[in-house]
Amino acid sequence: MLEALKKKVYEANMQLVHHGLVIFTWGNVSAIDRERGYVVIKPSGVEYNTMSPMDMVVVDLEGNIIEGHLKPSSDTPTHIELYKSFPDIGGVTHTHSLYATSFAQAGRGIKPFGTTHADYFGGTVPCTRKMSPNEISGDYEKNTGIVIAETFKNLDPNNIHGVLVHSHGPFTWGHDAMNSVENAVVLENIAHMAFNTELLQISVGQNGGIPMQQDLLNKHFYRKHGAGAYYGQN
Amino acid sequence: MLEALKKKVYEANMQLVHHGLVIFTWGNVSAIDRERGYVVIKPSGVEYNTMSPMDMVVVDLEGNIIEGHLKPSSDTPTHIELYKSFPDIGGVTHTHSLYATSFAQAGRGIKPFGTTHADYFGGTVPCTRKMSPNEISGDYEKNTGIVIAETFKNLDPNNIHGVLVHSHGPFTWGHDAMNSVENAVVLENIAHMAFNTELLQISVGQNGGIPMQQDLLNKHFYRKHGAGAYYGQN
Amino acid sequence: MLEALKKKVYEANMQLVHHGLVIFTWGNVSAIDRERGYVVIKPSGVEYNTMSPMDMVVVDLEGNIIEGHLKPSSDTPTHIELYKSFPDIGGVTHTHSLYATSFAQAGRGIKPFGTTHADYFGGTVPCTRKMSPNEISGDYEKNTGIVIAETFKNLDPNNIHGVLVHSHGPFTWGHDAMNSVENAVVLENIAHMAFNTELLQISVGQNGGIPMQQDLLNKHFYRKHGAGAYYGQN
Amino acid sequence: MLEALKKKVYEANMQLVHHGLVIFTWGNVSAIDRERGYVVIKPSGVEYNTMSPMDMVVVDLEGNIIEGHLKPSSDTPTHIELYKSFPDIGGVTHTHSLYATSFAQAGRGIKPFGTTHADYFGGTVPCTRKMSPNEISGDYEKNTGIVIAETFKNLDPNNIHGVLVHSHGPFTWGHDAMNSVENAVVLENIAHMAFNTELLQISVGQNGGIPMQQDLLNKHFYRKHGAGAYYGQN
Repeated sequence: MLEALKKKVYEANMQLVHHGLVIFTWGNVSAIDRERGYVVIKPSGVEYNTMSPMDMVVVDLEGNIIEGHLKPSSDTPTHIELYKSFPDIGGVTHTHSLYATSFAQAGRGIKPFGTTHADYFGGTVPCTRKMSPNEISGDYEKNTGIVIAETFKNLDPNNIHGVLVHSHGPFTWGHDAMNSVENAVVLENIAHMAFNTELLQISVGQNGGIPMQQDLLNKHFYRKHGAGAYYGQN
Repeated sequence: MLEALKKKVYEANMQLVHHGLVIFTWGNVSAIDRERGYVVIKPSGVEYNTMSPMDMVVVDLEGNIIEGHLKPSSDTPTHIELYKSFPDIGGVTHTHSLYATSFAQAGRGIKPFGTTHADYFGGTVPCTRKMSPNEISGDYEKNTGIVIAETFKNLDPNNIHGVLVHSHGPFTWGHDAMNSVENAVVLENIAHMAFNTELLQISVGQNGGIPMQQDLLNKHFYRKHGAGAYYGQN
Repeated sequence: MLEALKKKVYEANMQLVHHGLVIFTWGNVSAIDRERGYVVIKPSGVEYNTMSPMDMVVVDLEGNIIEGHLKPSSDTPTHIELYKSFPDIGGVTHTHSLYATSFAQAGRGIKPFGTTHADYFGGTVPCTRKMSPNEISGDYEKNTGIVIAETFKNLDPNNIHGVLVHSHGPFTWGHDAMNSVENAVVLENIAHMAFNTELLQISVGQNGGIPMQQDLLNKHFYRKHGAGAYYGQN
Repeated sequence: MLEALKKKVYEANMQLVHHGLVIFTWGNVSAIDRERGYVVIKPSGVEYNTMSPMDMVVVDLEGNIIEGHLKPSSDTPTHIELYKSFPDIGGVTHTHSLYATSFAQAGRGIKPFGTTHADYFGGTVPCTRKMSPNEISGDYEKNTGIVIAETFKNLDPNNIHGVLVHSHGPFTWGHDAMNSVENAVVLENIAHMAFNTELLQISVGQNGGIPMQQDLLNKHFYRKHGAGAYYGQN
């Protein structure tokens, strides 16, 4: 079942390798079929170069395996929680990409320093709070998703397509699997730029990161997103 | 029309990919036919690996599409403004390359720290002032070009072949499309070196960046440029 | 003799090149046959692209050459000392990989800043003390191994699969040669992330590196290791 | 004439590209035939991918072209000066490699922080003093070589196979052309490690760079160089 979606999820996962965001078995991409309420996701701990579309696992929104000969990613409950909390998204990507993860490890969000950020993310990419000992010892992966949703209580996930989980790494989302990967690639890119920008600001005595103007941020975000967008064809 | 120039602009755009200055649809290169007053530029939001010379768009200096089945780059009005303000240039390149963009995001020009810089740029590569809310909400891309021209009121664009737009990224130019790309590659390279140099200077208590001697800067710039140049094969 | 093990050691050595951890003749991987008490290791100063499985050298635990037409790696006595001190390990890798070596040069261990670290290393990857002039002028390579073992007097080598030798570089180990290489790749990765994390913490006035929560560290380590592990396929 | 040496110099130059030390026409490698007193060097401003061994230029120690249809590298007088001052060297390499050049731009030598450095360079790789306006406006490239020689007045060029020219970049040398390239590759590598090491030391309040122990430096240098060396195959 869901063969077309499995192929898309497989191809999106392979793009993680192509863009240098993962090594070994790290990272995972999923997509949801909203009508059936099924999620297709990468199997756990499988090497990318031995994987095929048929290895993708289908689970329902309680995490039960509906189809598949392998165990789903151990991060599956986090993906499911995101699909439940953010009704408009169609795909989710998780990586340990170098610079985005470094911000997560520093416990800091990525401020918007320039238009590269603003072209894709409509504000600071937030970092979640630390999880409590109970949240960690309990249903950890599900709680990770709940803490992400809590972080977006006053934020719009359709405006900011990603998050940094504290001491862990980035999750991004999008209208489908491939779009969530695209946002993961951009997030790594703007994380590297933000890292450089903060160090250059230190050199002239400006610690902590001074973000761009809100006017310019809005201009670039809405140049590419929403009703008034005029970037790209048609 | 302008088939030869379209091919050159196409090839220059593809060099952005080859040199690792762009991902996805980012960046754009244009060239001008001064006699006809037409500019050839990359289409907006098109993937590099699906693009062909025939996709290049021809516009006049008011931005009207003269030929082409696609919309031109959304940055076209900035390119046009540069061609109007700098009468000697034949090509313009815009990227979001990592280190040059990081300086732009820090709102800082790139000081000349060494001969790699001086071989190509005859002084600090300046950063523009922030744009005003009116400039942003108005004819934004055109105003970007106007602010660049303002930055060069007392600078020679034939001596310094590039600029950083505040909170945005680099524009470079040259005698033709490919030369503007070469300057974009060098700018990224010297931005990375300048970043490193500033951090090494911090380590010994020299914050803010101490530039090279003016004598050495001039020596290297004029070793490669102008009447007395002796680098390369006549 | 030990042809199968020689092939494995050869292939593990070649993975150092594949993962960009070594240039020229740098680095070396070995494995032990515990039953016979023989170690198979890369020959000294031989280029990777000219090497074959037959060039691997077999030595006993006193360092005598049992088989091989080439001299073994000059670091062989260090490897032997590790096999003697850590009875559960089956393979050892030594590299001068960029970021792990930078921490060794700074004389600092790599603190656990995030789950990427915790997925593989159950605590700080320690840095050895400086060696004394006598240890250096004496049986230097053997003493290097002894100082590593001393560093693990109160640490579990089955929990922390690597070490930084002060002013030198990383040694990692694992259940076999390839697993020790995998740990070397991960160590370089988490060293790079730790480097970035420390610089980002400086930007907000937190010098010296603030590690992750112990709860989260344990959760991730034991999600992948030991009796309760649930990452991967069965 | 000197066809064999031209081939070696050509191949050494191409290794600069292979190791990522140069872009465009940057960098140059030469070798000397001590018996004839002739130097073979890369032509000036020629792209690497269009170059062949026949394009190498033969000059005498006064800089006169003995053979060749192209102009020699503009840095030829510096190479000649090094061959005159350092009688034991057979090859010279000049690059603008990223990290070594960054140290040159900061006007700082590269201190020995670890054994990677000590395996190749027997002490700090020094940075020259700034050149005077007269030295710059006069016979600049020759004077560059003279200032390098001055820097080695109390240093042994057979112990430290390279230098950073202030605000410019590295020159390395060796027993032949390829060995000078190997030293250029290693210099870039240890420059990157030294950069990281200094930043990690800042994080714990140790500014300016704390070098390794002299005992360990000597141990590693003489493990690979001189009469007592035991690294590699006899």
